[in-house]
Amino acid sequence: MTSLNKRKIINDPVLGFINIPSDFLHDLLQHPFVQRLNRIKQLGLTSFVYPGAQHTRFLHSVGAMHLMKEAIEQLRSKGNEITDEEAEAAMAAILLHDIGHTPFSHSLENVLIKDFKHEKLSLLLIEKMNAELGGKLNTAIEIFTNRYRKTFLHQLVSGQLDMDRLDYLIRDSFFSGVREGSIGADRIIKMLNVKNDELVVEAKGIYSVENFLIARRLMYWQVYLHKTAVATEKMLCHILNRAKELCAKGKTLFASPALLYFLQNANKENLFASDPAAINYFLLLDDSDIICALKVWTTHEDKVLSLLSCSFINRNLFKVKISDTPFEEKIIAELKNSYVQELGVSPDEAHYFYNEDLIRSEAYNPQAEHIKILYNNGEVKDIAEASDILNRQMLSGRDRKFYLCYKLPVAEQSFDG
Amino acid sequence: MTSLNKRKIINDPVLGFINIPSDFLHDLLQHPFVQRLNRIKQLGLTSFVYPGAQHTRFLHSVGAMHLMKEAIEQLRSKGNEITDEEAEAAMAAILLHDIGHTPFSHSLENVLIKDFKHEKLSLLLIEKMNAELGGKLNTAIEIFTNRYRKTFLHQLVSGQLDMDRLDYLIRDSFFSGVREGSIGADRIIKMLNVKNDELVVEAKGIYSVENFLIARRLMYWQVYLHKTAVATEKMLCHILNRAKELCAKGKTLFASPALLYFLQNANKENLFASDPAAINYFLLLDDSDIICALKVWTTHEDKVLSLLSCSFINRNLFKVKISDTPFEEKIIAELKNSYVQELGVSPDEAHYFYNEDLIRSEAYNPQAEHIKILYNNGEVKDIAEASDILNRQMLSGRDRKFYLCYKLPVAEQSFDG
Amino acid sequence: MTSLNKRKIINDPVLGFINIPSDFLHDLLQHPFVQRLNRIKQLGLTSFVYPGAQHTRFLHSVGAMHLMKEAIEQLRSKGNEITDEEAEAAMAAILLHDIGHTPFSHSLENVLIKDFKHEKLSLLLIEKMNAELGGKLNTAIEIFTNRYRKTFLHQLVSGQLDMDRLDYLIRDSFFSGVREGSIGADRIIKMLNVKNDELVVEAKGIYSVENFLIARRLMYWQVYLHKTAVATEKMLCHILNRAKELCAKGKTLFASPALLYFLQNANKENLFASDPAAINYFLLLDDSDIICALKVWTTHEDKVLSLLSCSFINRNLFKVKISDTPFEEKIIAELKNSYVQELGVSPDEAHYFYNEDLIRSEAYNPQAEHIKILYNNGEVKDIAEASDILNRQMLSGRDRKFYLCYKLPVAEQSFDG
Amino acid sequence: MTSLNKRKIINDPVLGFINIPSDFLHDLLQHPFVQRLNRIKQLGLTSFVYPGAQHTRFLHSVGAMHLMKEAIEQLRSKGNEITDEEAEAAMAAILLHDIGHTPFSHSLENVLIKDFKHEKLSLLLIEKMNAELGGKLNTAIEIFTNRYRKTFLHQLVSGQLDMDRLDYLIRDSFFSGVREGSIGADRIIKMLNVKNDELVVEAKGIYSVENFLIARRLMYWQVYLHKTAVATEKMLCHILNRAKELCAKGKTLFASPALLYFLQNANKENLFASDPAAINYFLLLDDSDIICALKVWTTHEDKVLSLLSCSFINRNLFKVKISDTPFEEKIIAELKNSYVQELGVSPDEAHYFYNEDLIRSEAYNPQAEHIKILYNNGEVKDIAEASDILNRQMLSGRDRKFYLCYKLPVAEQSFDG
Repeated sequence: MTSLNKRKIINDPVLGFINIPSDFLHDLLQHPFVQRLNRIKQLGLTSFVYPGAQHTRFLHSVGAMHLMKEAIEQLRSKGNEITDEEAEAAMAAILLHDIGHTPFSHSLENVLIKDFKHEKLSLLLIEKMNAELGGKLNTAIEIFTNRYRKTFLHQLVSGQLDMDRLDYLIRDSFFSGVREGSIGADRIIKMLNVKNDELVVEAKGIYSVENFLIARRLMYWQVYLHKTAVATEKMLCHILNRAKELCAKGKTLFASPALLYFLQNANKENLFASDPAAINYFLLLDDSDIICALKVWTTHEDKVLSLLSCSFINRNLFKVKISDTPFEEKIIAELKNSYVQELGVSPDEAHYFYNEDLIRSEAYNPQAEHIKILYNNGEVKDIAEASDILNRQMLSGRDRKFYLCYKLPVAEQSFDG
Repeated sequence: MTSLNKRKIINDPVLGFINIPSDFLHDLLQHPFVQRLNRIKQLGLTSFVYPGAQHTRFLHSVGAMHLMKEAIEQLRSKGNEITDEEAEAAMAAILLHDIGHTPFSHSLENVLIKDFKHEKLSLLLIEKMNAELGGKLNTAIEIFTNRYRKTFLHQLVSGQLDMDRLDYLIRDSFFSGVREGSIGADRIIKMLNVKNDELVVEAKGIYSVENFLIARRLMYWQVYLHKTAVATEKMLCHILNRAKELCAKGKTLFASPALLYFLQNANKENLFASDPAAINYFLLLDDSDIICALKVWTTHEDKVLSLLSCSFINRNLFKVKISDTPFEEKIIAELKNSYVQELGVSPDEAHYFYNEDLIRSEAYNPQAEHIKILYNNGEVKDIAEASDILNRQMLSGRDRKFYLCYKLPVAEQSFDG
Repeated sequence: MTSLNKRKIINDPVLGFINIPSDFLHDLLQHPFVQRLNRIKQLGLTSFVYPGAQHTRFLHSVGAMHLMKEAIEQLRSKGNEITDEEAEAAMAAILLHDIGHTPFSHSLENVLIKDFKHEKLSLLLIEKMNAELGGKLNTAIEIFTNRYRKTFLHQLVSGQLDMDRLDYLIRDSFFSGVREGSIGADRIIKMLNVKNDELVVEAKGIYSVENFLIARRLMYWQVYLHKTAVATEKMLCHILNRAKELCAKGKTLFASPALLYFLQNANKENLFASDPAAINYFLLLDDSDIICALKVWTTHEDKVLSLLSCSFINRNLFKVKISDTPFEEKIIAELKNSYVQELGVSPDEAHYFYNEDLIRSEAYNPQAEHIKILYNNGEVKDIAEASDILNRQMLSGRDRKFYLCYKLPVAEQSFDG
Repeated sequence: MTSLNKRKIINDPVLGFINIPSDFLHDLLQHPFVQRLNRIKQLGLTSFVYPGAQHTRFLHSVGAMHLMKEAIEQLRSKGNEITDEEAEAAMAAILLHDIGHTPFSHSLENVLIKDFKHEKLSLLLIEKMNAELGGKLNTAIEIFTNRYRKTFLHQLVSGQLDMDRLDYLIRDSFFSGVREGSIGADRIIKMLNVKNDELVVEAKGIYSVENFLIARRLMYWQVYLHKTAVATEKMLCHILNRAKELCAKGKTLFASPALLYFLQNANKENLFASDPAAINYFLLLDDSDIICALKVWTTHEDKVLSLLSCSFINRNLFKVKISDTPFEEKIIAELKNSYVQELGVSPDEAHYFYNEDLIRSEAYNPQAEHIKILYNNGEVKDIAEASDILNRQMLSGRDRKFYLCYKLPVAEQSFDG
């Protein structure tokens, strides 16, 4: 690991004092791509429901790096070889894993950039940094993309029990105030081991893993997919889609240059490959561009845009209904009709005032690699098999709900976290 | 108190579940003037030093209202008469006490609006709300402005031991991670009483009051006046002053309409009295306008503006020195000269790259009303007299430092909270 | 409720300041039967594994009373009628629910008193207090014994989601340091309601109930049934059984009068009914009698007694093995034989040095009344049906393990909580 | 440092998971002298006021050892040489520093053993262990007794800012629930350094040191010297003194052999030197012997003994008055007289029912070595000079109160922590 001349400590209310372990990692932390994460909230619009949840992706990334350091120390103490170079690369990989995030939330990815996921964009940006740094991020990129020969290092960065998830569960629980979502990350880390190049949890940690999965699911339904947060997100998507539509029609619209660029180019194929300017605009885009524009749009001449922006800014949120079965078409048709009547919008525009969809908890993804439990006799079992408490339904991923959100004449606030 | 049909609970990571005590208070909470506080960080640029400190003035205001409720219950249980109407008014007053805040920090007040303090603006906005609400805030305004006959109610809103201070100390300590700044707000509240219409603390609470003053001072030097936070604030003031200068010269500058308005009108006398539009622009102004503009200014043709904006956005902050005595003029002259030489700016522009000033902890203000201790025999003493541990120097307000901050050729990051 | 002249506050590290709500409850708190609980640890021998877990049944009882107060306020706010007298009775019932506890743990009940459970003894003592107090505990007794017409009050005292369980989960989690065992008791209480005279949880609290059951199970296996704690408990039972045997043989044994009484009378039928002195001895018996005796017994001439006492006092605990299936008789026979050989004890005495048994988590008891979930449409479902995550196996109560604990030549310490 | 075959972790609710750093330290932890501390409460009778404060000297010792490890790592990272052997010795020294404690509290030292302080007894016991261990504790003993050439190691074990004090402040604050007593031990440790072989705190840690001293003083008056705790302690001293008197008169008294030994020999000169059995009795003496005896004494024929024991066991505590000046002799005389009249005791016995004394906070002892602050320019200042907030009075040690405690006809409970 590179020497440490720049002694830096970050005071994290969640994990305590965090030492930045090396000068190289310190330089990464200082890089504008990482500093940008200071301007992107970790939980996006969830702060509309949980007003304490204002924490940023920056601090989450630093926290995940810190847990990575602890996990590596733990694995080493059990005889698993991890070189200093590998350790630094794994920490770099997790520190950078979120740099490709759009403002606010995953939902905006599809609205602002065609066919793009933040993981792909993160990689693109890491590669750009790597070029700047003369290849110093080579190993980190191999670990990030799971091309490094030690698979377990990738699993620590991105897997069912990675340091990303451990950090965000405790962090989101801490800042939202939903204390039941907290987990014993330190205990889970103490139980980690490697078997046949795969990350495993020692058998006596099984209760902690069960608790982790339950807490994760609780956080999904109570926080990440809180109906009001989802409705707000849909509202924002509608607003931006409307803005895109107005742009396409040649209407004038206040927006920062970066936001304007994406409103105008959101539907282009392969944007980042075809236009070198795209990435620079992306790096200037964060939560503030969106908020700043919406405030101005509250008085825009387009009724749909101003109505929705007004509702958003003043927190007159969509009303939400949840159901185990899809909503009847009749209800939707009635809604549509009422907007045409009451708001004086065209039938084509009415869809901007409601949204119906299926939401799905991703507490555990059985399609991805599984959490493995290591028994004293050397046997390894899948958690789905090892746990005698968790329902297969959850572990099989069928954990979902239908919801319908829609504008009310006089919307009601709902903070009831 | 008005009846409660809208049962609302806010989940506060600091104080736990907060019940909104009445429909009227709930409506105030929903008011756009209060919702705007969701977009203004409580600690402004301190998050550059303590990245967890992203909490907003909104949640602080709600927290202070909650402590007010507890204080009122406590005072009532000791036989002090407080009517339901007074209780609601006191809670309204503290809920609204911060609505006149500019983005980021007190320092910006003077930069964006000539001769105006946020307290004055808060009052202006509360009066505007009162007109809308048909006088329902009359009592709240009397309490806020200390014209209500029960003085102690005003002291709970604004005094040396008010609910504002109690809330922000524990809250800022919680989110910054500086745990020593925390205090026993619940214990202090339990010790409150009223004597001769003045708020007093019962004698056995004296240790908690001493602890409160020490914690407050610690927070001043370690957080509120952290040298890096102060330097960042000065940097931002310089940037906005430069932007104002460019505006005055007729240069084009990207900014939201609200920010642009203040850049163009910041130096007008009696702005709010002379231009009715001013208040509307103010209500649209928050942290996002500033951040959004600075990002665009990083590529502005004016070298001073772009250099400073770049430093700010990428966290290449001013270097800071602290001293018990003023800095020598020679040092300043050398600094100035070096900027002319190295940056190629004019001698007139060089002052944008440094700042020297005196900073002062306001842990206890002996010029304002004093904290009073009530003894079992009915005697009341000033804390300065009652405490046998606190130094008169601190209680006499002479707690200050000189500092000098300035741009470095290659700036260094300083997270060391 | 009786008036409150005696303003008393207890500082609880877990729940914060607890106000004793009435003079009557304050007097109960001061009663020697309740004060005795200050000398009985809540988690008994678990402190051998989790050295922080030294908290007493007294503070637990006070905490449960406090949660009862909050639950009652919540239920009242939803329109359920609970008179002041009922409220005080329910609080009295839960404050007194544990006063019949023997020292250390449930296991000792059978060793020290024939055919007696602590619940029965608690009732006997409450009735004794009631006689002293001229019938003031009549309603409390009806609630405690489920003979009061409002069933839900009994369920708050003793049920699958009673205030006893809520308090001990958060308390035991807090003091043991097993933070994953913590639950959102405040959230669960906020979701409580009454339907058809039964305690129910509102549907949106289902995640918290699931979390409660998982946390409870985690606490069972990780804390309450921690193999080392169970082994230590068995060790203590063996020691006391040996002491009883020696008493029966007329051997002299140091013990406090109270402990000596039970060693001599433990096997009598209907002890409390037949001997009025029994209850007085019981009231003088607590953890200190046991510890005090064992220290003296470390040098007793009886080899079995001194060997075991020495191991206990110096924490040379039994070794434990856990299995999903019963242990083979052969293994046991070998163990027995080795003790005869190595320790020089008789084949009859060898059984004192090991124990095999079945342990069972009681996270949820499907034989008892069920946790009921109340939906918005008024429907009530059993949690086993309502939860789509919890495995029926757990909810059907088949959550158990076989274990074998035995003396090692040189025992090993095991703190690994 | 010796190798680590015995991987042991202790779960501490205050400091989290604590790894025992070496096999040697693990063996010390297992030693009966250290295990005994599991049976001695850290705060003695303070649990009569703060019922959560049941934590033991064992966990405190382990915690202090853990902080020592962190302090050593910190000092090493700043270039101060500390060998592995020295590190282990310093950790051993602090782990063992309390093994000479009598049950309950320092006050009992003088009652049970003539002219003996626990520090002296700790050293005696460490030397006994050292003999057993073939000299392996030689360096630890040199550090403990300040005969080792690196003075700062002794200061970490015993000084104004030692790991003992850091641990007990946060621990006692945590378990009592007096949260204001908590300090930023991690921050102080991060600021430690060594200058001229003396432990110093770097200048930017001065606020934390001030906070530490204020918190320490708050804990003294609010917890350690809480008037009810002090009164209870005096009550216990009186009880044991009466028991000694009865023993001397040849009266029969129930007590464990260990307690009986000290009751009979408490007044002998040089007990430990003259009687080899003394130390063995001492090692068997802990809180349980005292409690167990007092319960039996509640029915002793001696009125003084039974009255006081009854009051103690049933928590009918002495009433306490506090004053800045000594109490008048007249008041005392009246008290004495009333006991003769009301209780029917002789004038000679009346003194058992009250106590007057001077209590003194030891927050900072200016007679001992001072806390030193290290400035960036290498200068070292005493905290009394460096701090501009703390009153010299406190730093000069004149922080004291007179108190008088006495039996009431019907005593009142006082939990008001």
